[in-house]
Amino acid sequence: MAISATFSSHGFQGKRLVSPPRKSFGGNNVWLKQPVHSKSKSFSVELFNEGRNQCVMSTNSSRVQCRALEMKNNKSSSMVGNRFQLDDVIESQQFDRDTLSSIFEVAREMEKIEKKSTGREILKGYLMATLFYEPSTRTRLSFESAMKRLGGEVLTTENAREFSSAAKGETLEDTIRTVEGYSDITVMRHFESGAARRAAATASIPIINAGDGPGQHPTQALLDVYTIEREIGKLDGIKVALVGDLAYGRTVRSLAYLLAKYRDVKIYFVSPDVVKMKDDIKDYLTSMGVQWEESADLVEVASKCDVVYQTRIQRERFGEWVDLYEEARGKYIVDLSVVNAMQKHAIVMHPLPRLDEITVDVDGDPRAAYFRQAKNGLYIRMALLKLLLLGW
Amino acid sequence: MAISATFSSHGFQGKRLVSPPRKSFGGNNVWLKQPVHSKSKSFSVELFNEGRNQCVMSTNSSRVQCRALEMKNNKSSSMVGNRFQLDDVIESQQFDRDTLSSIFEVAREMEKIEKKSTGREILKGYLMATLFYEPSTRTRLSFESAMKRLGGEVLTTENAREFSSAAKGETLEDTIRTVEGYSDITVMRHFESGAARRAAATASIPIINAGDGPGQHPTQALLDVYTIEREIGKLDGIKVALVGDLAYGRTVRSLAYLLAKYRDVKIYFVSPDVVKMKDDIKDYLTSMGVQWEESADLVEVASKCDVVYQTRIQRERFGEWVDLYEEARGKYIVDLSVVNAMQKHAIVMHPLPRLDEITVDVDGDPRAAYFRQAKNGLYIRMALLKLLLLGW
Amino acid sequence: MAISATFSSHGFQGKRLVSPPRKSFGGNNVWLKQPVHSKSKSFSVELFNEGRNQCVMSTNSSRVQCRALEMKNNKSSSMVGNRFQLDDVIESQQFDRDTLSSIFEVAREMEKIEKKSTGREILKGYLMATLFYEPSTRTRLSFESAMKRLGGEVLTTENAREFSSAAKGETLEDTIRTVEGYSDITVMRHFESGAARRAAATASIPIINAGDGPGQHPTQALLDVYTIEREIGKLDGIKVALVGDLAYGRTVRSLAYLLAKYRDVKIYFVSPDVVKMKDDIKDYLTSMGVQWEESADLVEVASKCDVVYQTRIQRERFGEWVDLYEEARGKYIVDLSVVNAMQKHAIVMHPLPRLDEITVDVDGDPRAAYFRQAKNGLYIRMALLKLLLLGW
Repeated sequence: MAISATFSSHGFQGKRLVSPPRKSFGGNNVWLKQPVHSKSKSFSVELFNEGRNQCVMSTNSSRVQCRALEMKNNKSSSMVGNRFQLDDVIESQQFDRDTLSSIFEVAREMEKIEKKSTGREILKGYLMATLFYEPSTRTRLSFESAMKRLGGEVLTTENAREFSSAAKGETLEDTIRTVEGYSDITVMRHFESGAARRAAATASIPIINAGDGPGQHPTQALLDVYTIEREIGKLDGIKVALVGDLAYGRTVRSLAYLLAKYRDVKIYFVSPDVVKMKDDIKDYLTSMGVQWEESADLVEVASKCDVVYQTRIQRERFGEWVDLYEEARGKYIVDLSVVNAMQKHAIVMHPLPRLDEITVDVDGDPRAAYFRQAKNGLYIRMALLKLLLLGW
Repeated sequence: MAISATFSSHGFQGKRLVSPPRKSFGGNNVWLKQPVHSKSKSFSVELFNEGRNQCVMSTNSSRVQCRALEMKNNKSSSMVGNRFQLDDVIESQQFDRDTLSSIFEVAREMEKIEKKSTGREILKGYLMATLFYEPSTRTRLSFESAMKRLGGEVLTTENAREFSSAAKGETLEDTIRTVEGYSDITVMRHFESGAARRAAATASIPIINAGDGPGQHPTQALLDVYTIEREIGKLDGIKVALVGDLAYGRTVRSLAYLLAKYRDVKIYFVSPDVVKMKDDIKDYLTSMGVQWEESADLVEVASKCDVVYQTRIQRERFGEWVDLYEEARGKYIVDLSVVNAMQKHAIVMHPLPRLDEITVDVDGDPRAAYFRQAKNGLYIRMALLKLLLLGW
Repeated sequence: MAISATFSSHGFQGKRLVSPPRKSFGGNNVWLKQPVHSKSKSFSVELFNEGRNQCVMSTNSSRVQCRALEMKNNKSSSMVGNRFQLDDVIESQQFDRDTLSSIFEVAREMEKIEKKSTGREILKGYLMATLFYEPSTRTRLSFESAMKRLGGEVLTTENAREFSSAAKGETLEDTIRTVEGYSDITVMRHFESGAARRAAATASIPIINAGDGPGQHPTQALLDVYTIEREIGKLDGIKVALVGDLAYGRTVRSLAYLLAKYRDVKIYFVSPDVVKMKDDIKDYLTSMGVQWEESADLVEVASKCDVVYQTRIQRERFGEWVDLYEEARGKYIVDLSVVNAMQKHAIVMHPLPRLDEITVDVDGDPRAAYFRQAKNGLYIRMALLKLLLLGW
């Protein structure tokens, strides 16, 4: 079947409805019999300027996103047995707070599955391909563990760049059409912003973006918000300090966007001057009614916040300016003096890997949440795999 | 057990009969109790000059091939429960038209298994090693998907060259003897012609050649013929245009050989002068009674053929002659003007990856069969894994 | 949970007892309910100088080892259902002869499991991570085959160095804390001596050392002793020739240590002068009452021994002294003249890979045990995985 042709003739409908069963090998294909997508439903699109990370959306690809948000007002309680409202997971903007909340419920079930060993076969017979154009062992292992914890199987390559290497020179679209013949879902890491979106536009199976260069890494953003909700118990009304590299750090920028979906959030930016938060995010937060302020006093900020989100200053951003880098990286360290100033219920987060921006003696404090945060990535990924393959 | 010693004392018998059960871990070992090989059976050997791709066969290795063809006149209808007549899959010459026809029947069953989810456990408990001396992600993923679709498990290495690296310096034979202790079947990709045959001569488990340098890539040849039979409905009496790099292209040369096994086939060669089909194939076709002609008019040829098989001009063959390469690669492009000239039932094939020798606007035409062709590789590989491990 | 904090507050107890269930996903967690570790039990520690391979043990890490030996006098007959006395497999010194003997019993069961296909699901639902900081395809495939033969699943990386690469710069401890969230047991290969011990000190799941640079490779030592016991039928009273590179060869040094645990063992050292056995091992053997002598007559030694253990002279040890290397490597070759001098029941062993220090014509002799030895690695690793995850 020529997918592109089929695609263009069906317009706004979901991929699953216009193509043969995405999952054609075993499994529960309930959604195929009860399409929940409908052209008559209203939908909304959220678009915002991501500054350096901006992804220009073509008319064609924005349609994919529009569909993704059709069901945004459905509650998860009434969703069981229904199809997941997303065809693919490409960028954080796809998720509104109701969808997030429902996904978090599923992630909690996944924690139980991992511990109780029931339900661990729900993805038996399903095959996930990890198509990595650059190595990211941490992310890859997290996804592969998630799939295997649910009884699914994995095809792995960290060598996907070979497909498009000079000698072979295949387009991403051709690669996707080949790989989709081998698997039921594809997790893709790419070095180019927008690659995941291009893959999703081509594929007849779900695509999960596991990072596309300077673009998005939506499952990281999801696990961050999930961790806050899990540890603090709420997302409305929280105070969050974003610390470190706020200019280039993909995670803090995505987190700021997602936090803007919640009420009465206050964000503190604590960063060296050379890597300050950029105006696009500040403006976005202001437009969404989120309070924010910049501060140079980490201890004082930490004492007020529910979450201190530390990040690594990336040396590679500084090129030859080694002095600037050395100055920046030493400026705001989360050590025991910071943690001791924090409230009892508050937490320290970090997307990992860390160098020395959180001192090792903090690890023993119960407020050090970063390894639990990494573990939450497993549950979020289990939840997304379940939802994309089986529905609610 | 010293395999080499055992081997030499048993001569023509199949490997499985003189060695301990190849598959010693679970599974259906029916064939071990009812040996279908017999020294008294007649057998025939097909040998032909493959030109640049020629594989010199030693007395020892040709015996392996002889055995492979003993059962060539058995029909698949009477084969069920019997052992597969091949111990290994090393080169296209192992397959005659009856064997091909029977394999294609099994491949069709595999299409049903993939879709219906029954039978997907038939290789449960079996372990396949993919022993790749050079990366070939496309081929590896296809084999691994095939194995996992049937419930089997996989050990992967794209790093097999490490076994024979300078510091370690192990022979291929020693590597095979080690790896065969870990798995039930081995899929091997190597950079040297003849490597798969050497591996098969050593191994007590089945070896599948997934490409040995400039040598063979038999599963590609099989999936090509399977695709024609599947799409056109027959192999006798067809007209096929082979287009592009006919001098060095391994796939078109193998395809020409296999087509010669069918009746009333006509082949058109359409290629730039610098990469014309070589005389060894032309002579072979003539000797087999296959009509062929060369043509420079792709549209005219396309209008007469059932199959237009396009190939990529490989830049690496041209070295410094960039001009020659540029001239050659642009000469015969399959675009809409070619496809529009084709008959309604005809198809365009390509072994992939493609660059621009088929334009992207052709993809939407139902006659564009190349992605279906890639998918057929999955079914052919599922069939071969089933046959080598479980028999008919 | 901050593991380091928990750790320090519980001192000598086993990791499993102070942390949440190591194996939290399915499986048989019997040991968690019946702790067999007890602070009141007496225990002994064996420490010895490993010369170049010496691992300095900190107070903290030696505790881990002490615990490992608490149960050393329990017999396996009364162990069934009990927890394995080791938390991790880090170095050969952890194993006394009773433990070895019990492990060998389990390894024999594993041979039966592999052949009979019963019990192959005992690790179903368990997930092993192979965390390789340098490629070692042979070792990795052996462990992965072992896990899959028992029904377990595997997460693979040969790219673990990426975790600690310049750009990322994560500590081993942080990496372990992340990876332990994804798997139930970790097999680690590292380029630095002591890395496995550091990983075990951090991890709440079992760690198996699959080689840490010039340090240890305990599963190789175990499979060597298992092979001797399996082939010769005993370990007490045997005569063993260690041949080749005795100065740098990690395997022969470890083997000498383990043999010293048995009675009336006699060891012959046959090696070129430049790679003679070092004094630390000789002194240790003497102190343990093991007879040893050096000899230059390989045939004469071979005629007296039960085991001729040949090793590869490693070129990389000689740097620019190519002449010395060439002289050393040609000096003691195991060829048919050596094998023909050996007793009928004796065996030739080699850790593999071999170059030409054993000639290929020896392979056919039933006394050539080296490929069986490699296969025994599979059974030993199956046994260790079973014991660490399920107990006796």
